[in-house]
Amino acid sequence: MEPFSPNQPPFKSVRIVGSGLIGTSIGLALVAQGIEVDMRDIDNRAELLARDLVKSQEIADPEITILALPSSALAGALESEFARNPASKFIDVSSVKTKPLLDVSTSSIPGSNFLATHPMAGREVGGAESARADLFQSRSWVYLPVNLAGVPVGSDLISAGLWLIKALGATPVAMEAREHDRAVALVSHLPQAVSSLLAAQLTSGDGSALTLAGAGLRDTTRIAASSAPLWDEILTLNAAELLPLLINLQSDLGALIEALKSGRSVSSFIEKGAQGRALIPGKHGGVAREYTYLPVVIEDKPGQLASLVSECAAANVNIEDLTIEHSPGQFTGLITLALSKSDAEVLSKHLIASGWNVHAPR
Amino acid sequence: MEPFSPNQPPFKSVRIVGSGLIGTSIGLALVAQGIEVDMRDIDNRAELLARDLVKSQEIADPEITILALPSSALAGALESEFARNPASKFIDVSSVKTKPLLDVSTSSIPGSNFLATHPMAGREVGGAESARADLFQSRSWVYLPVNLAGVPVGSDLISAGLWLIKALGATPVAMEAREHDRAVALVSHLPQAVSSLLAAQLTSGDGSALTLAGAGLRDTTRIAASSAPLWDEILTLNAAELLPLLINLQSDLGALIEALKSGRSVSSFIEKGAQGRALIPGKHGGVAREYTYLPVVIEDKPGQLASLVSECAAANVNIEDLTIEHSPGQFTGLITLALSKSDAEVLSKHLIASGWNVHAPR
Repeated sequence: MEPFSPNQPPFKSVRIVGSGLIGTSIGLALVAQGIEVDMRDIDNRAELLARDLVKSQEIADPEITILALPSSALAGALESEFARNPASKFIDVSSVKTKPLLDVSTSSIPGSNFLATHPMAGREVGGAESARADLFQSRSWVYLPVNLAGVPVGSDLISAGLWLIKALGATPVAMEAREHDRAVALVSHLPQAVSSLLAAQLTSGDGSALTLAGAGLRDTTRIAASSAPLWDEILTLNAAELLPLLINLQSDLGALIEALKSGRSVSSFIEKGAQGRALIPGKHGGVAREYTYLPVVIEDKPGQLASLVSECAAANVNIEDLTIEHSPGQFTGLITLALSKSDAEVLSKHLIASGWNVHAPR
Repeated sequence: MEPFSPNQPPFKSVRIVGSGLIGTSIGLALVAQGIEVDMRDIDNRAELLARDLVKSQEIADPEITILALPSSALAGALESEFARNPASKFIDVSSVKTKPLLDVSTSSIPGSNFLATHPMAGREVGGAESARADLFQSRSWVYLPVNLAGVPVGSDLISAGLWLIKALGATPVAMEAREHDRAVALVSHLPQAVSSLLAAQLTSGDGSALTLAGAGLRDTTRIAASSAPLWDEILTLNAAELLPLLINLQSDLGALIEALKSGRSVSSFIEKGAQGRALIPGKHGGVAREYTYLPVVIEDKPGQLASLVSECAAANVNIEDLTIEHSPGQFTGLITLALSKSDAEVLSKHLIASGWNVHAPR
């Protein structure tokens, strides 16, 4: 069973320059689609590992060359790859667009043969060994239909890029370079900077305090473990978009400090944070959706969950998400179903009529 | 199957005043240990749900009264519970110690009959419906052997408290009030303040940027969804310990902004964050529950989920949790099943043999 049935691949061979997390994950996913892939890296160890993982093969003149490199290496690599194989089309997947693309726009490669993209996927661990073919499943993947110089990307190359994005399970999002850089400053670069600054505070605490660390500290500092050279490059390249956000944060932090100093309520700071958090789409998708949460208390055994989910199918409602709370040694479990408001009403009546222990939705 | 075999319980009946996340989770765990539990709350809806989940019963004179309330409600509730049942011993589980215990120390209850504790566990979602009996597994749980007035807690009550902490899977940590408040300012209150400030920045972005949100943003802002009244109280009560940390963060943020403005490397900020992150005990941000995650790509329609869950029941495995990722324009969804390692192996083979599109577990 294929995960989906896209059109036939519009290309058969791909050279991937850069065998890190992103490049190798793309390689794994493309090979699973029947594409021939040639993994490359200037780091011999990385290349060997990636070639082995991906079942990479030597390809003399690949139709597509994907550059999965730090932004600073993009223009140089593009130039030498173009010299090697001028008939290839080129796709990049780096994290910042405006500045690196200014360099690219002065290269010899025709603008219509270069598609700039950026998959919104990553992990705090890097390298080919962390790669996974499903890294891009259900993520957004930005692409730039028009190059910085105003040259439209060739329609064949756009088709190839869209096929690639969809074949890897991601959703294509068309953007301009500046729009992209502004968006990632907010959703990616600001959280990285804040997480690093927060985690840095732990170096001044005493060790015994850290024995009390819980999930909140772990989650807020997870991405602080990320690579310093990688993020130094990203944050400095995108400083123009990141700085206004950091300065606004600085102003809010100052206001919080003043409120605490003067003994005033800080409720508004927490509320504004909760409002911001609620804007993040619950699942990958165009808009944040408002779900209704329906709690159902069940006997804690596997058959009960299956039975409940079958009831949902019978009631013809769509479960948007589902959480299970239980622990070994207990006789009950709590299933919370996320549904649209109308589906929640339909299902609640249906389940109560069938004798389920349904609690008030929220 | 018991999670462990502690000594016989030193008490048989407990009244839990406060049917929120923490109180109800304690109730669930104690009932699983064979203790009779009486759940209470001033909010009728919360009490009814908690009584149902916990299989709570009416108990006239419980041996132990646990106060699972906001700090501001502690002294008042303690006074009225003491008036109701003066023979009971009292245990509180609130988040800040020094200031609230000053109020408690003026109450009528003998200091030796009151044990102040604080389990280092919580969730960004509150209420009885979010409770889980394993919430405290492998967490630290602070207790104060000596009350603020210098009165040692009775040895019977300390034994009861230590049994409770261990029976719920947590590790007891003896501390003084001020030492506790300083530690939680660093590992809990600072991350909360930072996460809220970060998430608040999202309210000024345009919605299209947020469609690019990935796991980094989700994790760093997860606790920003927490309750404003609860955290307003905690942060203001512990302002004396929190303020120096916020001021140091402000100074580091200023330095980062200056470095970016002048085009200098920001590598040292990312590196210091990685050093701080590495100080947190525990593996890769993993919490107590070590699950294996099994990704399954499905056709995105209700019948598929029911069918998948039925397969899990047929394979006789226990689904610990389940997340659904999909997007409207796509024909596939990604279900990630959380299971024990052995169940994941069993299920993976079973599903692959039945033709499901199962990916490598992680």
